[in-house]
Amino acid sequence: MELAEVPAAGDGETAIVTATPQFSRDSLALFCDEYEITMAQSFWLHRQNERACFELTVRHLPPHRGFLVVAGLEQALAFLAKLRFSADDLAYLASTERFDPGFIATLGWLRFTGDVRAIPEGTIVGAETPLLQIIAPRIEATLVESALLSIINHQTTIATKASRVADAARGRPVWDFSLRRVHGPHAALGVARAAYIGGAAGTATVAAGQRFGIPTTGTMAHHYILRFGQAGEQQAFEQFLRDYPGRSVLLIDTFDTLRGVDRAIAASRATGVTLAGVRIDSGPLLELSSAVRHRLDDAGMRDTEIVASGDLDEYRIDALVIAGAPIDSFGVGTMLGTSADAPALGGIYKLVAQEERGEMRPVMKHSIDKANDPGVHQVFRVAYHDVLALDGEALEGRPLLQPVMRDGRRLEPLPSLQASRDRCHTELTAVPAPMRRLSDPVPWQVMRSARLVALRSVLTGESIESVV
Amino acid sequence: MELAEVPAAGDGETAIVTATPQFSRDSLALFCDEYEITMAQSFWLHRQNERACFELTVRHLPPHRGFLVVAGLEQALAFLAKLRFSADDLAYLASTERFDPGFIATLGWLRFTGDVRAIPEGTIVGAETPLLQIIAPRIEATLVESALLSIINHQTTIATKASRVADAARGRPVWDFSLRRVHGPHAALGVARAAYIGGAAGTATVAAGQRFGIPTTGTMAHHYILRFGQAGEQQAFEQFLRDYPGRSVLLIDTFDTLRGVDRAIAASRATGVTLAGVRIDSGPLLELSSAVRHRLDDAGMRDTEIVASGDLDEYRIDALVIAGAPIDSFGVGTMLGTSADAPALGGIYKLVAQEERGEMRPVMKHSIDKANDPGVHQVFRVAYHDVLALDGEALEGRPLLQPVMRDGRRLEPLPSLQASRDRCHTELTAVPAPMRRLSDPVPWQVMRSARLVALRSVLTGESIESVV
Repeated sequence: MELAEVPAAGDGETAIVTATPQFSRDSLALFCDEYEITMAQSFWLHRQNERACFELTVRHLPPHRGFLVVAGLEQALAFLAKLRFSADDLAYLASTERFDPGFIATLGWLRFTGDVRAIPEGTIVGAETPLLQIIAPRIEATLVESALLSIINHQTTIATKASRVADAARGRPVWDFSLRRVHGPHAALGVARAAYIGGAAGTATVAAGQRFGIPTTGTMAHHYILRFGQAGEQQAFEQFLRDYPGRSVLLIDTFDTLRGVDRAIAASRATGVTLAGVRIDSGPLLELSSAVRHRLDDAGMRDTEIVASGDLDEYRIDALVIAGAPIDSFGVGTMLGTSADAPALGGIYKLVAQEERGEMRPVMKHSIDKANDPGVHQVFRVAYHDVLALDGEALEGRPLLQPVMRDGRRLEPLPSLQASRDRCHTELTAVPAPMRRLSDPVPWQVMRSARLVALRSVLTGESIESVV
Repeated sequence: MELAEVPAAGDGETAIVTATPQFSRDSLALFCDEYEITMAQSFWLHRQNERACFELTVRHLPPHRGFLVVAGLEQALAFLAKLRFSADDLAYLASTERFDPGFIATLGWLRFTGDVRAIPEGTIVGAETPLLQIIAPRIEATLVESALLSIINHQTTIATKASRVADAARGRPVWDFSLRRVHGPHAALGVARAAYIGGAAGTATVAAGQRFGIPTTGTMAHHYILRFGQAGEQQAFEQFLRDYPGRSVLLIDTFDTLRGVDRAIAASRATGVTLAGVRIDSGPLLELSSAVRHRLDDAGMRDTEIVASGDLDEYRIDALVIAGAPIDSFGVGTMLGTSADAPALGGIYKLVAQEERGEMRPVMKHSIDKANDPGVHQVFRVAYHDVLALDGEALEGRPLLQPVMRDGRRLEPLPSLQASRDRCHTELTAVPAPMRRLSDPVPWQVMRSARLVALRSVLTGESIESVV
């Protein structure tokens, strides 16, 4: 494994992080749906490996979302760049007796050789917008569908959720505390990374700090206190303060929150160690945080911060902040790590054009409620809306799809995680308030160019062969 | 990597599967919350490494769930058995400058040496039941909390969801089609595995077939048809039928479902290849499946099966089955793979007892709404409820917690995936109907033994030191 010395995101310090943009060293080639291999073999048998253009698009915004925050591109590109069917993979496919040995051999040397354009991570987008656009030989493009979707769908879901939570906290730091509730340990990497892009201050997940240089944090658990028995809460606090002078955040709700803060104050005085913070993980947070703040202030500990956690989400944080709860930062777990109110994103991967007689020609599907926009697209950002256009159109505005891979090779390194986070923050700040509402927001508008509308109407008229 | 020849689950065939019960070859040691390492270092500094008992318990059933289906134990034990801080991990921890070099060196040789008891996968349980019970030196037990929780929470969430979907389908096969919508590619392994335990017939995710021997399936995508242009649907069908004689399931809704089935019938006749099935992925499934069935029957293709997919969940499947929709099997994606209506499980990992003066003594936390059952437990199954008791009590019923690890070494191999699936099916069949309702079910009852109730009341009276 390569080691790289990179600046740790967020605090300007330097940290060793391991360069593993993919989430594990295992081959991900078989993270595909079986039909991808079945179809690929059929194309192989009939030499139907023309170039085709697929776009990854989200058809509808999830509930309560006025926009999405794009994330996951780094892992998507790492997956494409490293696509390999290992010897184990090929042996497994052979064992199923469903595939031709010649085809399996072909998979053994298959690499991704296509061109990719993408919207940068941290960008705010609406529905029906191509986030990723792949032009590649059909077999390659077929085999990568589901892995790309699961990466982009997941991280975009979480980055979007995190942007809501951070927005609700209005500048107070929000930390990802979700590892224990996410969909398996590996999901925690995508969660921590995407949450950071969306506006989280960092994560408690150490592996995410290791791999991405994301700032990490941690306080203490109830069982640390219980180690000392019920009569030993202050003793536990004193030990922790001495062990971590200057950065101890003491958990004060194991028995009784108000007695807990008194003991934390007493422990700080007994040890002479400054109390950096206290955490409240249960109970009525508005009332408790107010009472705790009073006691801290009365003790002269005005700089001691209050961290709140426990089943928080953007709605509860919004209510706490509006009510004036004196909470300095939030730890958000379950609701952030699973995007509990909208846990899935309906991203799709659609064939929009294919090579015929040497040129790319638009393709359209007509299924009920599932028609797509035909043609290779570009998206233009104009103030607070986007225009979906056909590639090659010169419209006003900033083109969002940028080249990121050519002939299977990555181009410039993507912007840093910090830069993606900054982009999200900048764009979010400029979004009009009605689109940022937590409930029933106005959706980010996506228009279609006149040429695209015309093409769609021609193809809906079922004269696909006549379209130039 | 070891290769093992094992029977493929489900069909009696033999397949080569790679023995990777953990989902990747990377070290998972840093898949922990930072506070686990912080607390572990504090215990290390003060030689507070007594044995402690932690239990993994779900406090409340998720919405609409009358019970849970336990899953994830295999990966949880693999994680414990392979726990290692790699050189990269140690270098990263050192780079944070938050930990003592002596402690980091200690982590380098740390192994999990504890004892574990667990409820077998596929078992149906209620709330407040210990699914996993760990007795280990405190530092080890502290470091494994979040990884264990994320594994068990995730797979139990999905197995439970799958059991509902399979129950609604009333014997019709249900297939996991969710890879593209899950929380990152690795989550798909847990989803496919847990869904299989919960009653899915198998999965479309090839990597899950490879690793676990789960039956896999696949049909075709819309873009396969679109390759041939709108006028080429029948040509596409003919090619696919010839390529996969006897097992082609043709997707018929790319343009118009009824014209699609007509073309599928015509393609079957033109090629002389039996049409194994057709898939409908959009539109009103009751009406379309009935019309499609009629056309197939009229064509004498009574054995051709109808597969339905497209935003299905247990509620829609239940309605379709009750309405008599002639659907033979279901492909379920998003809603299964994210357990969309209840995407998170509130599993917790609580200190329930610890060694003091040579014996294990019960521990209890009092946080508002977060009190736990003190003591090392056993659970007894009595007909349609369980009794939570203190370890050592001899109650009627079958004890559910079984030893699975001793001194850090795994005992007998766990039951096969097929056996866990059979267990779930057998238990589910015996569950009274009111507990199996899809909405507002009666919850699986968990009683407490008289001794446990007495202990809880004594500890709530805050006389922890007086309890024997």
